[in-house]
Amino acid sequence: MTTYTAPLRDMRFVLHDVFNAPALWARLPALAERIDAETADAILEEAAKVTSQLIAPLSRNGDEQGVHFEAGTVTTPYGFREAWHIYREGGWVGLGGNPEHGGMGMPKMLGVLFEEMLYAADCSFSLYSALSAGSCLAIDAHASEALKATYLPPLYEGRWAGTMCLTEPHAGTDLGLIRSRAEPQADGSYRISGSKIFITGGEQDLTENIIHLVLAKLPDAPAGAKGISLFLVPKYLVEADGSLGRRNPAHCGSIEHKMGIKASATCVMNFDGAVGYLVGEPNKGLAAMFTMMNYERLSIGIQGIGCAEASYQSAARYANERLQSRAASGPQAKDKAADPIIHHGDVRRMLLTMRTLTEGGRAFAAYVGQQLDLARYAEDAGEREHAQRLVALLTPVAKAFFTDNGLESCVLGQQVYGGHGYIREWGQEQRVRDVRIAQIYEGTNGIQALDLLGRKVLADGGQALASFAAEVRAFSLDAPLHREALQASLARLEATSAWLRSRAGQEPNLVSAVAVEYLQLFGLTAYAYMWARMAATALAKRDEDGAFHEAKLACAEFYFQRVLPRGLGLEASIRAGSGSLYGMSAEQF
Amino acid sequence: MTTYTAPLRDMRFVLHDVFNAPALWARLPALAERIDAETADAILEEAAKVTSQLIAPLSRNGDEQGVHFEAGTVTTPYGFREAWHIYREGGWVGLGGNPEHGGMGMPKMLGVLFEEMLYAADCSFSLYSALSAGSCLAIDAHASEALKATYLPPLYEGRWAGTMCLTEPHAGTDLGLIRSRAEPQADGSYRISGSKIFITGGEQDLTENIIHLVLAKLPDAPAGAKGISLFLVPKYLVEADGSLGRRNPAHCGSIEHKMGIKASATCVMNFDGAVGYLVGEPNKGLAAMFTMMNYERLSIGIQGIGCAEASYQSAARYANERLQSRAASGPQAKDKAADPIIHHGDVRRMLLTMRTLTEGGRAFAAYVGQQLDLARYAEDAGEREHAQRLVALLTPVAKAFFTDNGLESCVLGQQVYGGHGYIREWGQEQRVRDVRIAQIYEGTNGIQALDLLGRKVLADGGQALASFAAEVRAFSLDAPLHREALQASLARLEATSAWLRSRAGQEPNLVSAVAVEYLQLFGLTAYAYMWARMAATALAKRDEDGAFHEAKLACAEFYFQRVLPRGLGLEASIRAGSGSLYGMSAEQF
Repeated sequence: MTTYTAPLRDMRFVLHDVFNAPALWARLPALAERIDAETADAILEEAAKVTSQLIAPLSRNGDEQGVHFEAGTVTTPYGFREAWHIYREGGWVGLGGNPEHGGMGMPKMLGVLFEEMLYAADCSFSLYSALSAGSCLAIDAHASEALKATYLPPLYEGRWAGTMCLTEPHAGTDLGLIRSRAEPQADGSYRISGSKIFITGGEQDLTENIIHLVLAKLPDAPAGAKGISLFLVPKYLVEADGSLGRRNPAHCGSIEHKMGIKASATCVMNFDGAVGYLVGEPNKGLAAMFTMMNYERLSIGIQGIGCAEASYQSAARYANERLQSRAASGPQAKDKAADPIIHHGDVRRMLLTMRTLTEGGRAFAAYVGQQLDLARYAEDAGEREHAQRLVALLTPVAKAFFTDNGLESCVLGQQVYGGHGYIREWGQEQRVRDVRIAQIYEGTNGIQALDLLGRKVLADGGQALASFAAEVRAFSLDAPLHREALQASLARLEATSAWLRSRAGQEPNLVSAVAVEYLQLFGLTAYAYMWARMAATALAKRDEDGAFHEAKLACAEFYFQRVLPRGLGLEASIRAGSGSLYGMSAEQF
Repeated sequence: MTTYTAPLRDMRFVLHDVFNAPALWARLPALAERIDAETADAILEEAAKVTSQLIAPLSRNGDEQGVHFEAGTVTTPYGFREAWHIYREGGWVGLGGNPEHGGMGMPKMLGVLFEEMLYAADCSFSLYSALSAGSCLAIDAHASEALKATYLPPLYEGRWAGTMCLTEPHAGTDLGLIRSRAEPQADGSYRISGSKIFITGGEQDLTENIIHLVLAKLPDAPAGAKGISLFLVPKYLVEADGSLGRRNPAHCGSIEHKMGIKASATCVMNFDGAVGYLVGEPNKGLAAMFTMMNYERLSIGIQGIGCAEASYQSAARYANERLQSRAASGPQAKDKAADPIIHHGDVRRMLLTMRTLTEGGRAFAAYVGQQLDLARYAEDAGEREHAQRLVALLTPVAKAFFTDNGLESCVLGQQVYGGHGYIREWGQEQRVRDVRIAQIYEGTNGIQALDLLGRKVLADGGQALASFAAEVRAFSLDAPLHREALQASLARLEATSAWLRSRAGQEPNLVSAVAVEYLQLFGLTAYAYMWARMAATALAKRDEDGAFHEAKLACAEFYFQRVLPRGLGLEASIRAGSGSLYGMSAEQF
């Protein structure tokens, strides 16, 4: 009952028509030799097959069967091993990886679309791949040449998989509190000891080896977050010839029983003097890990988009089939006992809310991907820096806003089904359970909001925001549609930001009291920019494929009329400040 | 790990201090003889024991074990039978029942507080009782004296339980489409045939008999909703002496596998010429069923409040214990490695949002309960009619707004826990799954919104709304706190209503396009009225119990500053109308 079709037409619209990615690739030498429009389309079509035909059919059973843990080993659900084999043979783990070590070096703009398909097909399966790809990024950016040469090729190949081991029972958001220890050895390696929790793919039966990236403290390290180092700890030690040696004492102690993503093994990992290798500088582990975390944050954000797209497809299909009551404007299917519910205003409201949030998110993910590509591949240092500043600013927005919208959309997609959405049969309830984790892991959405407002907007004196705002304003001046609404939304975001800047100094709790609403206001404005761009493109292309582009124009209209006004309430709530949050003592809660 | 403490102090605040229920009871003769302040408190204390000590401890296992179906019989989870026995011996099923037939005749104002405790303890267990109490209401209001005398006493006793059988696979919201048939028999009874789905407690092992209230069509009944009759169909036929006779062919064919409320049996019921008895007039079954449904709608709304309260208690406790990072205003627990997260602004924002929505809902439930009591027991016909008009207006608001806020609150309560909220251990994820159904069943929240705006606000020319608005305005004139904000919110609701009234005639899709946002705007205003009343009471009583009443004042402040502004965005979205929903054909979705 749960089918998923990759929205290739919509993806090409974003990639080719709205952002003209091939033109960008052509002017970036590193990418020009690897990809063009045809290659990109071929990759997307192959990705569509793998995700919709190979992975999506495993999702329902994966949820019901879950992962099984016994005597330290994890068994993934029926079909996962075979699917992983085909998936890794296709080279998908290394899609964005460094070609020097076996990666395909594909641009992130393409990567975000692939990731959306992957999460739409099945969140649990996706995570084994996403964590691995993220760990490769951290290794590639910070590890020694020797470590890179040994570990990256089999990781990109998917013969091995990577994990990120940060959280401990008493240290989640506040990693400064971790207790895991690393003892230096005479041979330059370390012995890692400690317990980590919530480790995705900490143990599994998909790959020959598992490469843990572990945060731990060196002896005499400074207290807190400044005393954290990053270590690479393989499940099996690797011999000089690349073959697997003895088992490292890095064992899975148990797995969690969760609300969703049940086919993803969430492990307690116990390191008992396991051999590890330092990645990057001593005591700079958090910064090195952030290379991976920023990548993961965008990826996890895309989990929200993928789930929402899958839920939308299912709900839209059901709304076209389910007959119930007559439309308010008169019978639409006179030969039937009732009209398809797609004709009821409230059903359309739900579907269009899902769709405009999902497509707005897809465009914004591609936009952030574009900035990531520019930050990495642009020849001009100024252009790279500008793009990097935008990436830093927009990553927390993407992670949190995509996933908040992901939950909202999946809940709406379940609601369209009425009682049938609450039972397992149609898959809509699984999507709600699966997408919910995305607001929590890789830094809760509250932490993303603090990062955005505190570090990215206020701490730099507003420079990054000003860059983004200048781009939006410049676009708006020539926007053929929705110009005033876009400018008003931008003005609201800027005025609210300025107000916060003027107040944050005197009101220490202000940032944390309003950050979440600020992030949502930011996200709404960013989507307004995306919808204005999509509308402009659709208007220009209307003659080519009328029905497709008319639908884009109609969606843009809905977004500006019915979704964007949420910003009014958010602004008012932000401007009310932190005072009303601190009228009670801790005990009065 | 999942503990629940009935918030007796807060409940007494609402019952005694805000609404002065004992004074109301004293002036209504039927109630004056049954209840006073002391009796009410004694009942609440007993209810607190039963729900928190007997039922709440069963919730986690109930979720994990679920109900078991085999060969037509349903087995409830471990402990449910024993708990039901104690529960029914306490007379709780008949708490609000008609004393002429063995009910306790307690006022609804008390009933809503009891129901909140029950849902907070465990939703699944609650449903067996709630459906039974609702079916008694329909029987009491519409059945013959003979049926009442036979069926009500054992139902109130909880020896038997009731169900409501409305939905068929092709007929949910649109009950006019049902196909179940009733054939008249020579003895005045009927033979009922047809299949019903989503029947809560359709089969179970808690009671000796199960009494189904079934919607079906008589031969030659008018088409659609005007041709529906209501029948009482017992699982076992009842002999003249009240003993159980032969098994009626009303069998459970299967049960659903659901997202939550897993200990509640959701049954497919097959009626194969089962003996049934007409309740009320032929072809007036839908009206008769609405007696039950309106009761259930308020009850299901209260499911949202109960779940939210339980989630809040758990989250507030965790936030006081969990140490993570330092407060923005400086260290709060200097002797510890980090501060309790209750000191972080975003955690307070989440907890206060939960709390103000939950306590606003509790007060509003008591307010609607008060109107129900007046509608039933007031001596003056005008007073009864006025109250009945308010009940009709406010019931859809209660059902939908309570449950929307219930999901929001349970999601926030899970978010406070971070990753620990996503795993089963702490119970927060179960509450999200359990509360989610409440937005769907007993008429989806979209249907509640249509009922509110279409039937209750626009169809009567705005009389009911004007009554409610007059009361709110009258209170606001003397409100010692939040006067302007309350008046502004009321003015926004009235202006939006007037605008809708002026437009609905020309724009047939308008009502269904904006009804959900209108209901939320209405709910926010209703809660503003509740919070202004609670603040006024707390201000007056501040000398008595400072900390308790200061907390109420602080919560009111938060509600007006940070929650109520949502109305701004809702109003703007409503005023954008239906146009942007109909720019696409059904196929373009």
